[in-house]
Amino acid sequence: MTQTLDSPPPAVQNGPAQTWLADFEAALKARDVPRAAGMFATKSFWRDLVAFSWNITTVEDPAGVADLLSTTLERVDPSGFALEEPETTDAGVTTAWFTFETALGRGRGLLRLKVEDDRPKAWTFLTTLYELKGHEEPRGVRRPKGAEHGVNRDRVTWAEKRQAEAETLGLTEQPYAVIVGGGQGGIALGARLRQLGVPALVIDRYERPGDQWRGRYKSLCLHDPVWYDHLPYLKFPDNWPVFAPKDKIGDWLESYVKVMEVPYWSSTTATSASYSDEDGEWTVNVSRGGEEITLHPKQLIMATGMSGKPNIPDLPGMDIFEGEQHHSSKHPGPDAYEGKRCVVIGSNNSAFDICGALFEHGADVTMVQRSSTHIVKSDTLMDIGLGDLYSERAIASGMTTEKADLVFASLPYRIMHEFQIPLYEQMAERDADFYARLEKAGFQHDWGDDGSGLFMKYLRRGSGYYIDVGSAELVADGDVELAHGQVSHLTSSAVVLEDGTSLDADLVVYATGYGSMNGWAADLISQDVADRVGKCWGLGSSTTKDPGPWEGEQRNMWKPTQQDALWFHGGNLHQSRHYSLYLALQLKARFEGIETPVYNLAPVHHLS
Amino acid sequence: MTQTLDSPPPAVQNGPAQTWLADFEAALKARDVPRAAGMFATKSFWRDLVAFSWNITTVEDPAGVADLLSTTLERVDPSGFALEEPETTDAGVTTAWFTFETALGRGRGLLRLKVEDDRPKAWTFLTTLYELKGHEEPRGVRRPKGAEHGVNRDRVTWAEKRQAEAETLGLTEQPYAVIVGGGQGGIALGARLRQLGVPALVIDRYERPGDQWRGRYKSLCLHDPVWYDHLPYLKFPDNWPVFAPKDKIGDWLESYVKVMEVPYWSSTTATSASYSDEDGEWTVNVSRGGEEITLHPKQLIMATGMSGKPNIPDLPGMDIFEGEQHHSSKHPGPDAYEGKRCVVIGSNNSAFDICGALFEHGADVTMVQRSSTHIVKSDTLMDIGLGDLYSERAIASGMTTEKADLVFASLPYRIMHEFQIPLYEQMAERDADFYARLEKAGFQHDWGDDGSGLFMKYLRRGSGYYIDVGSAELVADGDVELAHGQVSHLTSSAVVLEDGTSLDADLVVYATGYGSMNGWAADLISQDVADRVGKCWGLGSSTTKDPGPWEGEQRNMWKPTQQDALWFHGGNLHQSRHYSLYLALQLKARFEGIETPVYNLAPVHHLS
Repeated sequence: MTQTLDSPPPAVQNGPAQTWLADFEAALKARDVPRAAGMFATKSFWRDLVAFSWNITTVEDPAGVADLLSTTLERVDPSGFALEEPETTDAGVTTAWFTFETALGRGRGLLRLKVEDDRPKAWTFLTTLYELKGHEEPRGVRRPKGAEHGVNRDRVTWAEKRQAEAETLGLTEQPYAVIVGGGQGGIALGARLRQLGVPALVIDRYERPGDQWRGRYKSLCLHDPVWYDHLPYLKFPDNWPVFAPKDKIGDWLESYVKVMEVPYWSSTTATSASYSDEDGEWTVNVSRGGEEITLHPKQLIMATGMSGKPNIPDLPGMDIFEGEQHHSSKHPGPDAYEGKRCVVIGSNNSAFDICGALFEHGADVTMVQRSSTHIVKSDTLMDIGLGDLYSERAIASGMTTEKADLVFASLPYRIMHEFQIPLYEQMAERDADFYARLEKAGFQHDWGDDGSGLFMKYLRRGSGYYIDVGSAELVADGDVELAHGQVSHLTSSAVVLEDGTSLDADLVVYATGYGSMNGWAADLISQDVADRVGKCWGLGSSTTKDPGPWEGEQRNMWKPTQQDALWFHGGNLHQSRHYSLYLALQLKARFEGIETPVYNLAPVHHLS
Repeated sequence: MTQTLDSPPPAVQNGPAQTWLADFEAALKARDVPRAAGMFATKSFWRDLVAFSWNITTVEDPAGVADLLSTTLERVDPSGFALEEPETTDAGVTTAWFTFETALGRGRGLLRLKVEDDRPKAWTFLTTLYELKGHEEPRGVRRPKGAEHGVNRDRVTWAEKRQAEAETLGLTEQPYAVIVGGGQGGIALGARLRQLGVPALVIDRYERPGDQWRGRYKSLCLHDPVWYDHLPYLKFPDNWPVFAPKDKIGDWLESYVKVMEVPYWSSTTATSASYSDEDGEWTVNVSRGGEEITLHPKQLIMATGMSGKPNIPDLPGMDIFEGEQHHSSKHPGPDAYEGKRCVVIGSNNSAFDICGALFEHGADVTMVQRSSTHIVKSDTLMDIGLGDLYSERAIASGMTTEKADLVFASLPYRIMHEFQIPLYEQMAERDADFYARLEKAGFQHDWGDDGSGLFMKYLRRGSGYYIDVGSAELVADGDVELAHGQVSHLTSSAVVLEDGTSLDADLVVYATGYGSMNGWAADLISQDVADRVGKCWGLGSSTTKDPGPWEGEQRNMWKPTQQDALWFHGGNLHQSRHYSLYLALQLKARFEGIETPVYNLAPVHHLS
């Protein structure tokens, strides 16, 4: 989808979507906003990824469409709407892939029509920018030649150029952007910016790319399957495991940095940063292998992990506890704990993974469940939850990764739970026996506030679930003991719960999750900037841990924030792949001095 | 093509190819060899890659078909011939892709029919094996799960398994196969064997994978374009340069070894090897980082480069020459030679590349042309020679790398020059001005003995050409001086030709090519074994440097030789990719104890 720059094939039918697009284009050409807005259903959604809004935003209903168009239409000057493949109709909904142009770029979208008042009207409308005119990526027919043919007495080889860049970028030449964090998010964005010719430097505290994964507990494997996890440009080969072990992913990320030529400083920690409104420039102090260096990028991107900043509880007695204690992100794996009494605080993904590995290594393990958790079995989730878009089955049916990403992006967050609920009802039915056993063992289980399950929990709060790869059985069977309630305090040798239960412990693992990414900004920049930007992640769904008001997009992610030139990039591999494109295009436009008026910059409602 | 294991789509027409395949299958089922052979045209070719013959061999005409079938039919028990996509007819030739099965495996082929005596008869028939039943590769739907779900107190992680293998393979556990040479050929085969579960160890003398390329002269870029150069399993991303610089390819190969988990010993030199007929086992002595280790593989593969063993001339006076002298394979690049008088002996690819780089760096350069050379301009070759199969144009028309490889493989070597000659006639016309200038400068140019150009020269002799990326202009313009004739001797400061011409020299580069790969066997094993195996490469075309009799396949490459358990693997990236599959399947069958009676084992006619 995003890989071909060719013109789309002509549509083979003259269906309602083709007509709708032609009419819509005519209304836009006539600058007739009411007419264009009237082509949307009473309850409808237009999601725009950068193409119209220089933002990631969703407007709703004719009124929202009118507002978006009133602000952006003249500047965007959209044209050339054309079907990319024949439209299809199923259960009253007509679906059509299309391409279009704006004054500045080329886009691709997905339209769904429903009949309202006997007329096909847009129900969902996705518009995405995939390239800026005059700044097309050097890929495919535009790939570089590599060899420089002919005779050139000033010839500089590829290796010499790479070496020269390594010796200057960040030292004698300032990068336009600095990306803090070299995990999958940072390097996916780094690769995109390299492709777009934006000088960007990724810095990371670890010794080698991939150490972000290598350093985690040793049994860790990805919980998402391979089809969902590709990075931009370079897909995993087809012998890649469904759930890649952490060290294998680590090696892949390391290779990726090299192959994609991402400028990357290892063993580098950002120690402080500040923005000068006057100069329009950051001052970022970093320590690179012990050497203090000051960088002056125009843009600063936090790619430190949406699940990156540990929530470590502040409990009475932590200072007198004589055993070992650490956050789950620092857990070294189970090897040293055979025969030890281990208490794991928490009952989400990390907690289960760690409990399972400790049990396997002969530890005596207790899980402390503080609140209810949603569990789905991995196989079930893969099959029912992701199978249509990301699976061998999807590939066999002609689905590509790029297309699947756009299908996913086209479902409005406002109504996404409605599509999710029936899937989780199916899952509950399929694994009814499993859930019965789990509840019998006293485990507090939920399906999310509205029964919409795991993915909505991820989007709303980024927590509250476990994708079961086996450890849930340990709890159901009582192999891992279960305790309930909040922790009151620690003694020198035990964890004491609020109901007085005392759990003897040689090891306490705080699998207590992670804070909002603006906490990173507080540490690196200032509390003032962190507060100005506000909470990252969440949709404003007014469900548990996702307070309203409704925003309709992931707060502060991949789009402009209330702090000039500060960006947040993160999420799972799917999101790193997909949204890095839109963030990269926003940065590229600014690098090129293109005007980027932001429509609908989100206000701040929560500080963390 | 080789990547999908799904059943082929049903054919949409009932054309001559479908009928031919059904009739052919019926004849084979009936074990009616004369009837099957009679379905081939008077002048026809059946090329088999392992599927029928456990060999790489071409038989010709009904008599050849009868001979192949008489020997193999009962054992192979072929069945299930089915079109893989609709057949096509163009200019009287019907072309059809098909799949089939044998008793042991699954295959894929390409059939071309011509009408003879009013009946469609097979003109070319390609049969290839792509997998052994019960030994399908773990890819796609068969990919490994990666994570091991459930609870397992003996869990071993991926990293632990890899570590354990590194500590045992070749040390306490013997590899089934040892591959000498870790360039593109060795690692492509290593990756295939890893996929097939055959314990194989690649050893290489350099410090890091990719150093085979990094160590070459610094201006070197691949002469073949990216579409032709993919390795198995992991394709270059679409931003990869058309002609990759040597260091970038080096980095790719290094990543490939890691990503494909190829067991690889760096800094390891094989010092001697011998085969015990009694034990059916090799003794291979290697020096690994200075440590002497003895390996006992069942199979030994020389992947040391078909252009690997330097031909260094033995000239009078080489011992008294006071300047620097080296073979082109040891040339460090031009940096040290500014202002120096450089004499390059030879006028093929390496000679031109080296002359060009030396000239660019301000050296005074003379090329000594000893015999005529064929030159084509790179752009012209890419467009006319490769464009239909390996280019963006080919991709846009639906051609895949795997399909292109099979199309290429389906053209019988006996008549391949007939297809090549018109292409080179086109090239001569397109670049007529260039050739006129070259000849005016005194350069001796040819198009091959029969005008069939570069690719036939490559297949027949592996030498005698230059793909011009600019340096030919230096000769045409006189910037690089040209001398002609054989070298008589060296003095302390000059190269003296047989006609008495004396060329003062600070540097002499012997761009004098490479010997047959069995020279490697002579060095490593014994002259006796090298002679038993005989010359590698060449078709037996009775053209210059490719003495007859006709063999019709590359001698000794990727197939059984006259020495049990000794194999030769090499060639360009295309050949390393494509033929590594067939070599890997031959090795896998032997590893599994499957009977592999070789049809038509080639006799030896030349020792080098």
